[in-house]
Amino acid sequence: MSVPDPARRNERSRRAILEATRALLTETGYADLTIGAIAARAGVGKQTIYRWWNGKGAVVLDAMVEAAENAGRELPDTGDLRTDLLLVMRATVAEFADPALSETTRAITVETLLDEELAAQVRDRLLRPQLDAVKKRLRTARLRPGLDLDQVVELLFGPLYHRWMLRTGPLTDDYADGLVDLAIAAVTPAWPQP
Amino acid sequence: MSVPDPARRNERSRRAILEATRALLTETGYADLTIGAIAARAGVGKQTIYRWWNGKGAVVLDAMVEAAENAGRELPDTGDLRTDLLLVMRATVAEFADPALSETTRAITVETLLDEELAAQVRDRLLRPQLDAVKKRLRTARLRPGLDLDQVVELLFGPLYHRWMLRTGPLTDDYADGLVDLAIAAVTPAWPQP
Repeated sequence: MSVPDPARRNERSRRAILEATRALLTETGYADLTIGAIAARAGVGKQTIYRWWNGKGAVVLDAMVEAAENAGRELPDTGDLRTDLLLVMRATVAEFADPALSETTRAITVETLLDEELAAQVRDRLLRPQLDAVKKRLRTARLRPGLDLDQVVELLFGPLYHRWMLRTGPLTDDYADGLVDLAIAAVTPAWPQP
Repeated sequence: MSVPDPARRNERSRRAILEATRALLTETGYADLTIGAIAARAGVGKQTIYRWWNGKGAVVLDAMVEAAENAGRELPDTGDLRTDLLLVMRATVAEFADPALSETTRAITVETLLDEELAAQVRDRLLRPQLDAVKKRLRTARLRPGLDLDQVVELLFGPLYHRWMLRTGPLTDDYADGLVDLAIAAVTPAWPQP
């Protein structure tokens, strides 16, 4: 059939816009990113972008959410919690240590502090799925009884976020390993089980 | 002696300005705070404030640093680490849960994300002494060998900061207690010592 399909055309434009956004973020950074540059790169009109998004922060958020979805959020389950957490925390620490990604995340953070609606979107669409993936993996592990798994997940991501935001120390593999070791010690049953 | 002492007069003005800043932060919040209002309240000219500080963020930072110094940063040492950490973490969680203080801290956070010099000042003058006070208390406790105490301190403050910034959950005494229990489990020697 050669009848044009508007839904499919829209979907193609949407994907081109988000892909252009990610490419430009890497090349020029968040501060210099403009809706005009995204439109030119994606081969659409600026009005197409403004029809679907109310500004730069919203497009960038969708671009990041799509990238996270494509990367896959499920944690591996090797049977050894430490091994699986090391993998995810080293990868997450490396993301925060990456200058381009870090700059984008800082810029988005500023916008979320000024815009509660965007903050809720970042939390629920970008952050929550990541936290939930770790929580899901924790559920299959043998842990101390009575733990609040939300708090356990924050024990991993909270210190990293604090260190990144406030620049209090290096963001290295060694750091990620130390963080995992502390969290593992926090959740491991105090006595050997039969 | 009735000879006027400029240094003493300056010190009196400085204190009046910082006290006025703290009073206005409580009454009107950071967003509506102006240098003019601080000057009027402190009984000084605006130019006096601009002679010592380059803007609102810098005055507010000094006001917060002075308040923290007056409150005293030393942790108690009852001999029981859990008791002492509960005290400091409940107090810190309550500070982040306080709407006026939280709004000020959020506003300062936005400014630190846009101003690296201010960020370094906040980190070194406001945050670091608080982290160091906890680190000092940890040094007198019996902990697992080989721990990085900077990471242990971040295990307490990081999750709280993450939860507060991203509004992922309640900030209550129960939350503070759970946080301390996890941290204690993370640092306690794995086997009973003689």
